[in-house]
Amino acid sequence: MAAADKKADPMSCQVVLAGAVAKDLLTEVSEGLSKLGKSPLLVGFLANTDPAARKYADWTDRTCRENGFKFEVREVDREDLEANVLAANEDDGVDGIIVYYPIFGNRQDQYLQQVTDVSKDVEGLSHRYIFKLYHNERFLDKNMSQKSLLPCTPLAVLKILDFLRVYNSILPYGNRLFGRSITVVNRSETVGRPLAALLANDGACVYSVDVTGVQQFTRGEGIRKSRHEVVEKEGWGLETCVPLSDVVICGVPGDSFKLPTKLLREGAVCINFSTEKNFEGDVKDKASIYVPAIGKVTIVMLLRNLLRLVQNREVRMDSKEQALKTILSQRV
Amino acid sequence: MAAADKKADPMSCQVVLAGAVAKDLLTEVSEGLSKLGKSPLLVGFLANTDPAARKYADWTDRTCRENGFKFEVREVDREDLEANVLAANEDDGVDGIIVYYPIFGNRQDQYLQQVTDVSKDVEGLSHRYIFKLYHNERFLDKNMSQKSLLPCTPLAVLKILDFLRVYNSILPYGNRLFGRSITVVNRSETVGRPLAALLANDGACVYSVDVTGVQQFTRGEGIRKSRHEVVEKEGWGLETCVPLSDVVICGVPGDSFKLPTKLLREGAVCINFSTEKNFEGDVKDKASIYVPAIGKVTIVMLLRNLLRLVQNREVRMDSKEQALKTILSQRV
Repeated sequence: MAAADKKADPMSCQVVLAGAVAKDLLTEVSEGLSKLGKSPLLVGFLANTDPAARKYADWTDRTCRENGFKFEVREVDREDLEANVLAANEDDGVDGIIVYYPIFGNRQDQYLQQVTDVSKDVEGLSHRYIFKLYHNERFLDKNMSQKSLLPCTPLAVLKILDFLRVYNSILPYGNRLFGRSITVVNRSETVGRPLAALLANDGACVYSVDVTGVQQFTRGEGIRKSRHEVVEKEGWGLETCVPLSDVVICGVPGDSFKLPTKLLREGAVCINFSTEKNFEGDVKDKASIYVPAIGKVTIVMLLRNLLRLVQNREVRMDSKEQALKTILSQRV
Repeated sequence: MAAADKKADPMSCQVVLAGAVAKDLLTEVSEGLSKLGKSPLLVGFLANTDPAARKYADWTDRTCRENGFKFEVREVDREDLEANVLAANEDDGVDGIIVYYPIFGNRQDQYLQQVTDVSKDVEGLSHRYIFKLYHNERFLDKNMSQKSLLPCTPLAVLKILDFLRVYNSILPYGNRLFGRSITVVNRSETVGRPLAALLANDGACVYSVDVTGVQQFTRGEGIRKSRHEVVEKEGWGLETCVPLSDVVICGVPGDSFKLPTKLLREGAVCINFSTEKNFEGDVKDKASIYVPAIGKVTIVMLLRNLLRLVQNREVRMDSKEQALKTILSQRV
């Protein structure tokens, strides 16, 4: 009887698919592209036989073609990868570079990540970009004419939170997550940790969870600090931080992890960025909004970053030209 | 040193004044008025010497004049009030009636509230409107052509929460507060209790607080119920519910009540509808948004209700005319 009642009740959870979010963002990218007056070339390096990497490359290919970008996949032996990336760095015809990881599957991959030139790193994983991110600095230069890049997956999550109005546009830019508590399950260097930092820099109280425990990222009392600080939460676990959170973001690889629905706050916003389902089947009974996957937004962020790289390069060329003109005029 | 540091830090709290919210809402009211093609008459009955009532009447007068409504204040002896209201009920020239309370300052005032005809009650305090409110029914008729009225002050708070994006427009209409926890300090029959019910009907988890304790208003697990239910929270106090709340709304008369800032969640939204300051001076150190007063919005809601009364009357006249035509056509 109770079960039948439950079934008859209207479902209160709003399922938001990444495609809907990606659509708006693609429009923005298209507008930027049309102002550019050229079709930028993205080169993808494939040096493994991982089917997921291949799938991601195919997907990048299709998205590029459909949206006026050029894409070229270069299959190389992993021993030749570094030399090939260095050549692409030097090639003026190449606007952006993406490498499909894992390559060696160990620390050497982190070394390789830094081989791609900053000016061509569409993934936003160069140390310079990541440093800016952690320091909550949004520009590469003092004139604030070249915007820094953010890594695609964390950026995709921010764009989704913006779409979902978790960012409150009534608050000043840079503080729009003030008052939100967010749990992020995953603290990898490429996604979870930068994501926690970005959310906290925007004003949220973030609980970053991995197997070692929980860390709290915030800008301090009244978000008065200009960037986040991290505090270890001794003895905390998912059961402590999830019930406090308005938003729960999961990205745990493998199919063994499931976030227990019973820990969720009534009406929590739940986002999954893992390729596996990190939430239990009944998440929709309790969440106000559920985003089951984010891949389609991530790929748009790749294009957005590519566009930004080209724009930044144009700014640098303009200022070089300006400097040259100044020197020439002084000679006359 | 710490104090100096604190002073130098940027203030993260956004103070939102009712005037800013009222402006947008007045535009809506003006548009409705221009479609009407007439200037509705509001009659205010003043039967006391309370300076606050006089001030409210003057303010109503000014707002009406500035926005194309007619206003007439009628000063009467309190013993003659009932007869005068009954006469205004019958007078086709009168579109809306407001009585400035208190009159007798006892239960007789509640009797008087029900004397004003439902079709002229701009304050939305008639039992029929309040009944609809508690039952989460938005229309007066089965055809859903006449919208029910909401009492001005609770309605003003909802409009402010909408302006502040506490209502999430990504969620379906009627569920837009799902996931929000809201404390309302005041459980009067004219403001606090209807407000708690309205917020819970829209999906929030509401803690309604008065001197007798805390009650929780919700639509149940997964907001599956069509209207709110109330649960007594034994042993709870402000110290239990305020730290759980994204939004804290206070309307305690008298200057002795101050909500302790230390109980607030970081980044809470704080709204005061009392004429006294119900929050401590340092509320802005912790809140993301602070609304110090709501009077200017309340008065716009009075005009909005007046407009709705006239619109509802037009709908009724149209359907009467239609019925008459049908009868006449059947005779032929």
